[in-house]
Amino acid sequence: RAHRRAGMTMADKDPIAFYFDIFSPFAYLASHRIDAIAMRYGRTTDWRPVLVGITVLKVMGMKPLMTYPLKGPYLRRDAERLAQMWNVPFQFHGLKGHHSLNAMRAYVWLKQSDPALAKRFAQAMYRRLWVDNQDITQPEDVMVEAAKLGIDTTELRAAITSDAIKKALKDEVESAINKGVFGVPFVIADDEPFFGCDHLPMLEHWLEHGRWKTA
Amino acid sequence: RAHRRAGMTMADKDPIAFYFDIFSPFAYLASHRIDAIAMRYGRTTDWRPVLVGITVLKVMGMKPLMTYPLKGPYLRRDAERLAQMWNVPFQFHGLKGHHSLNAMRAYVWLKQSDPALAKRFAQAMYRRLWVDNQDITQPEDVMVEAAKLGIDTTELRAAITSDAIKKALKDEVESAINKGVFGVPFVIADDEPFFGCDHLPMLEHWLEHGRWKTA
Repeated sequence: RAHRRAGMTMADKDPIAFYFDIFSPFAYLASHRIDAIAMRYGRTTDWRPVLVGITVLKVMGMKPLMTYPLKGPYLRRDAERLAQMWNVPFQFHGLKGHHSLNAMRAYVWLKQSDPALAKRFAQAMYRRLWVDNQDITQPEDVMVEAAKLGIDTTELRAAITSDAIKKALKDEVESAINKGVFGVPFVIADDEPFFGCDHLPMLEHWLEHGRWKTA
Repeated sequence: RAHRRAGMTMADKDPIAFYFDIFSPFAYLASHRIDAIAMRYGRTTDWRPVLVGITVLKVMGMKPLMTYPLKGPYLRRDAERLAQMWNVPFQFHGLKGHHSLNAMRAYVWLKQSDPALAKRFAQAMYRRLWVDNQDITQPEDVMVEAAKLGIDTTELRAAITSDAIKKALKDEVESAINKGVFGVPFVIADDEPFFGCDHLPMLEHWLEHGRWKTA
């Protein structure tokens, strides 16, 4: 709607950047809504990879949020009730020592040739971890889901250990940090930043009304 | 509405607990909305004092949120746009080394005899810090605002240095921590916790629909 009022078409505006990490339960939940929100305002999305282990832990010097006293249990409860409100299948896994490095590298490689397929891969990995509670850490975990999508796993296996893809993901994370991304889900629309599932309504307000200051 | 549907009156339900600290810009912003939200659902509020210096810093082992790289500037921007969206007068002060200990002790003492007056005092202190950008730290700062409300400042000055009031505030903070409060604004309605300005819409959803799980 907003873009029509201003006499613009979808092509006139940059895609809405959706920063995600397979590791994050809240980014998983937001991944179920971001495309529909964008579409409602005639916009597209660009799913951009982040590693929260780097943004949260190294850059900010925080611990993983779920491990903080008081806040950890609250966030867990919050994720569960959000999933219920939004009717998104979700349950916490009991994995330890898991990480999303191989999965996110695979995403980067897939996106270079086919962003739509890369997104379907990310959704499959999300489902694997946050619905089926299976591990995502090892290359094997990544290959199982890739194979179901008809992806050539020989190529993919080579890609995720290549220096080029390692560097490409590193560059993505660095670019995100330079844009102020400190956790996920993080959305940037027309230079305006929105952190967390809670900020999706504010994102919609922004897409509908534009700048906060009308002066 | 919800209380009528269930055939209950306002008196049947506990007040909605609104945990605040004069120190916090986001609790200031939420303080402009919480009573109206409660009233819309036939509920009352109980403004409960917290010291974020204790919950955030000591219990959680975090630094003040505004001092984190990336997240600090984001939160500042977020407070400013929220104030604009909600049409609440607000600007960041440039104070350093300020704290709300005397103000919160004064609130505790006032609340013991007159909760409505205590709330007006809290609102005056909020305005002093977050609209007029004046200091709130010293007993003098507290007395200036108290005097405008017709409060006996001789009594108040004695109260905020008394062991009884020091202990009463300490007990309030401990009680909050025991309920899982780790920052402000924090709302507890019918045992359901909501952290942050962003969660006020979810609070409304809860007040309207009750439990997330209908099973």
